[in-house]
Amino acid sequence: MHSRLTGVLSPVVTPFKPDLSPDPEKLVRQCRWLLANHVGLAVFGTNSEANSLSTEEKIDLLDYLMSEAVPPERMMPGTGCSALTDSVRLTAHAVKLGCAGVLMLPPFYYKGVSDEGLFRNFAEVIERVGDSRLRIYLYNIPPVSQVAITLPLVEQLLKSYPEIVAGVKDSSGDWENTKAYIDNFGAQGFDVFPGSESFLLQGLRYGGAGCISATANVNPAAIAHVFANWQAADADRQQLQLNKVRSIFAKYPMIPALKAAIAHYGDDTSWMTVRPPLVELTHDQQSALVSELNGAGFTMPGLEESTAAA
Amino acid sequence: MHSRLTGVLSPVVTPFKPDLSPDPEKLVRQCRWLLANHVGLAVFGTNSEANSLSTEEKIDLLDYLMSEAVPPERMMPGTGCSALTDSVRLTAHAVKLGCAGVLMLPPFYYKGVSDEGLFRNFAEVIERVGDSRLRIYLYNIPPVSQVAITLPLVEQLLKSYPEIVAGVKDSSGDWENTKAYIDNFGAQGFDVFPGSESFLLQGLRYGGAGCISATANVNPAAIAHVFANWQAADADRQQLQLNKVRSIFAKYPMIPALKAAIAHYGDDTSWMTVRPPLVELTHDQQSALVSELNGAGFTMPGLEESTAAA
Repeated sequence: MHSRLTGVLSPVVTPFKPDLSPDPEKLVRQCRWLLANHVGLAVFGTNSEANSLSTEEKIDLLDYLMSEAVPPERMMPGTGCSALTDSVRLTAHAVKLGCAGVLMLPPFYYKGVSDEGLFRNFAEVIERVGDSRLRIYLYNIPPVSQVAITLPLVEQLLKSYPEIVAGVKDSSGDWENTKAYIDNFGAQGFDVFPGSESFLLQGLRYGGAGCISATANVNPAAIAHVFANWQAADADRQQLQLNKVRSIFAKYPMIPALKAAIAHYGDDTSWMTVRPPLVELTHDQQSALVSELNGAGFTMPGLEESTAAA
Repeated sequence: MHSRLTGVLSPVVTPFKPDLSPDPEKLVRQCRWLLANHVGLAVFGTNSEANSLSTEEKIDLLDYLMSEAVPPERMMPGTGCSALTDSVRLTAHAVKLGCAGVLMLPPFYYKGVSDEGLFRNFAEVIERVGDSRLRIYLYNIPPVSQVAITLPLVEQLLKSYPEIVAGVKDSSGDWENTKAYIDNFGAQGFDVFPGSESFLLQGLRYGGAGCISATANVNPAAIAHVFANWQAADADRQQLQLNKVRSIFAKYPMIPALKAAIAHYGDDTSWMTVRPPLVELTHDQQSALVSELNGAGFTMPGLEESTAAA
């Protein structure tokens, strides 16, 4: 049995080849760089363009990561799909490979669905996977999925599957909502990860488990430093630095901006590529982003060596 | 080359077995009943719970329909998925089987995406499928997908792929939007299908191509009758009858209500089953629905014989 996931995780951005197929070698290098910077791997998150990948593509990528000895005990792949059967297949595969947890979106096509329908979805996945090693982190991101993980739903799931339902990633952007998960379920060992490092320090002080954040793709060491030193005297100052970097990225469409930064600081323009329906940053946008990041003293130490390591 | 799809189509509801796997035999019988009632087959629509099915399940169902000689020239399967690679695979398969058209959702997970990103998505599918027989009907259903098919997007697609981009299903529920598609692109042979029979007569008088409607699953003959006789003296009276039936279904969650009606009038309770995140109607809800439908003189002639035909 692995120990629980905790700390800072990154929804690892997915590199694409010119034909828009995923580039597994570059993904491995990015994962290694993140691990070296003390950040865990929430591959196939929203920022991974996971919902622009087929289930087969995700399974192939997971298998490749394993073949390259990326440690499954540091991984929380996203396995919640629109179709129940896809969620079951991907979740079962992740558990079989020994992933420490899975991050599970609710089915996100149908809107206005009931908590009972969502409960049945998660329960079907749990029953069909049928593996006591499964640890599910519910993924609440109503601004994108438009389907929320409500408190009554969590309560019902914890009642039925107390060992399996391990926590939540809250990307509501609403601290009151994050706080409510902790207030209601934290004492039962339910781990609450804010979906942004903006709430990292606040979350840790309140009993949160860390964070799973887009910008951990580009600023991993600094975010992991706040996690490791949250009780230090200068923690608030460090948190302000994190916020400053995040606010620069937040001026752009997030996923293309993350990739533009990796392309620049890793000296590899192929990282600019996104899959439709996303559109990469223009050269001017990338220049403006980099200029502002440089102005803030931002760096990505070790990235260039990492991306050149092929 | 098949002739263009026109008239009334139904997003055929998908029957499930007790283990929630699709029931291909029952789907075939439902398709045959719809065809006998002059309604075409938009399988894998929103009301088909298509986005709760994996790509493999949809491909297997398409293959089964073909093996049972369901005519592809009457079919417009939904093939637009969240992931580009799924959309390509499913669309290519539908074209290979000779389907007259495909109904294509925009990728629906990422929100706030640009028309350029959506154009690239559709263009990639068209280029990768690479078959001049492909006919795409764009699927505008912002209340569910949260991603709209805008007029500039249609314009750009028609400019690049005038033979392939054949029309739109508009489930915006906003007649002004439907009208704008016809005003801007109708003269180019772009076929506009309102997403509900509520706009059938109004649409036909304005140059619409028919309709693709949830309730065509249960009221096919009457809807097809209005299409065939829209210039008859009593057309308005017939349209009011359609509206009356639809308004009864609209009091319930639509997909479970359609299935509850088929279960009742076809005397086959297994039709009640939906996949999570949907929830079937309760027995009381079904009774109330049927009671109101009976009160309105609603029937489903031939359905029982059709469902018993196994």
